[in-house]
Amino acid sequence: MSLLVTGSIGIDTVEAPSGSAEDALGGSSVYFAYAASFFSPVNFVGVVGEDCPEDFLKPLADRGNIDLAGLEVRKGSKTFRWHGKYHDDVNQRDTVSVDLNVLGEAGPTIPPQFRDSKYVFLANTHPALQIELLGQLENASLVVADTMDLWINIERDMLVDLLSKIDGLVLNDSEAKLLTGKSNIVQAGMECATMVKKFVVVKKGEHGSLLFVDGKVYPLAGYPADKVVDPTGAGDSFAGGMMGYIAEQDSVSVETLHRAIAYGTVVASIELEDFSLNRFTEINRSDIDARFEEFKELSAF
Amino acid sequence: MSLLVTGSIGIDTVEAPSGSAEDALGGSSVYFAYAASFFSPVNFVGVVGEDCPEDFLKPLADRGNIDLAGLEVRKGSKTFRWHGKYHDDVNQRDTVSVDLNVLGEAGPTIPPQFRDSKYVFLANTHPALQIELLGQLENASLVVADTMDLWINIERDMLVDLLSKIDGLVLNDSEAKLLTGKSNIVQAGMECATMVKKFVVVKKGEHGSLLFVDGKVYPLAGYPADKVVDPTGAGDSFAGGMMGYIAEQDSVSVETLHRAIAYGTVVASIELEDFSLNRFTEINRSDIDARFEEFKELSAF
Repeated sequence: MSLLVTGSIGIDTVEAPSGSAEDALGGSSVYFAYAASFFSPVNFVGVVGEDCPEDFLKPLADRGNIDLAGLEVRKGSKTFRWHGKYHDDVNQRDTVSVDLNVLGEAGPTIPPQFRDSKYVFLANTHPALQIELLGQLENASLVVADTMDLWINIERDMLVDLLSKIDGLVLNDSEAKLLTGKSNIVQAGMECATMVKKFVVVKKGEHGSLLFVDGKVYPLAGYPADKVVDPTGAGDSFAGGMMGYIAEQDSVSVETLHRAIAYGTVVASIELEDFSLNRFTEINRSDIDARFEEFKELSAF
Repeated sequence: MSLLVTGSIGIDTVEAPSGSAEDALGGSSVYFAYAASFFSPVNFVGVVGEDCPEDFLKPLADRGNIDLAGLEVRKGSKTFRWHGKYHDDVNQRDTVSVDLNVLGEAGPTIPPQFRDSKYVFLANTHPALQIELLGQLENASLVVADTMDLWINIERDMLVDLLSKIDGLVLNDSEAKLLTGKSNIVQAGMECATMVKKFVVVKKGEHGSLLFVDGKVYPLAGYPADKVVDPTGAGDSFAGGMMGYIAEQDSVSVETLHRAIAYGTVVASIELEDFSLNRFTEINRSDIDARFEEFKELSAF
């Protein structure tokens, strides 16, 4: 089933204890799209500047099932850039620099042929832009968004308005606490779930996630990753794996959502084993399924 | 099967956002013993001072299957006291005061009738004392210990010596990282597992735990607790539920260990719903089993 994603495309520089990557392909929609493409065709929407190297998005184009008709190369604009540095404990990082560039301008336009996409993921951006993008869609049966602490702090009302219009929200534990003012993460997630139509996923990084749906809380452990090279994009890859699986199954049952966050966990655990999309380009769906089965077996008691 | 525990008995004062408890029954062996007693008879070994109120340990005596023959009331000594204060986020706490008192003196003596206990838990204390207690045992088939950052920092060699003599270790994630110098918790746990004979459990508080055994890592999510009144004793209750289940099953198979940490998680999640042993005194085994089944169902994907 058709899955649309819109979010950032970035030129990333990453320093980590085990190496570094300079001017590498990154951004929320990039990680999301590649992760989702293991499961489902993806309609890709995003904007880069004219400084963007030719063939920069070739890894996405080469997938064969990612439709880049929604990629805009904007004249006179510059591509979003991010430079981050991870500590020896790679769960900690500092942002060295960030240049919003085109992300600070008008948002992308969703091409006509994408407007009836059934599954939609609005990656993190200004909630006003997320609302505007939502208005360009016609027949979505499941719209899920991501957000960040910045919007909770400075655009809370608009974010709450967005949430009332969408089905699902994916956010970090610290963001769920900030949004609700509750320090207990289960209480915070439950309150977040009342703000959207259907479900909330609270991500806890290496500690896994919590799915809140139909008044219940489904806890999921993190995949026990002993090799973490670059966690950049892990959260977006989680969302991509999750939404890709939902679109593939063409179902929003609780059982599907539950398995979807497990697939998201597995896909993210592979992504962070190398810089940028490097690990993704080495694997196929059967590698994901094999790790999913291993994770399921290790988790069952 | 017989399960022996030795550890602290404390007069605890706890301040938490939802209330407080003054001079309440606490200590590692107390929480452990009560938690374990839902599953298995317990041989209890510990020391209090002559200031200890009469009937202070009555909740343990009233259980009917906790043998207090190893309880020493030491003349001229004072009971261990701890005073802690939890933040609004109850995952954070400050120690207001701690008086080691009798815990800083010679350790307890294991009564002759306890010396052939098959399952043994050496709760956190000086590793020299844990080694001495181990020397008083005769036919233990599974000895598991707890420790803390203090001993890793100041008595590392002695602790490593202890670990080489025992089957299992239960410790926090920060302690596992401190013991091994590794910031990746999976790598840290794997290295800890090489230091003992059989298995390691790394506890991550609300985020669950990781079981390291036979070269594999079994991740377990935390129980999604929306009511946390007083986390004091949760780690000891986890260990008590775990060891109680192992003793009840009289098995150290990987399958049993895996289910044992799930039972430990469930027992701890009940304990922290009120101060001291208050919640434990209100429940029975069927309440634990009901929550275990709920946790299992919510965790399965």
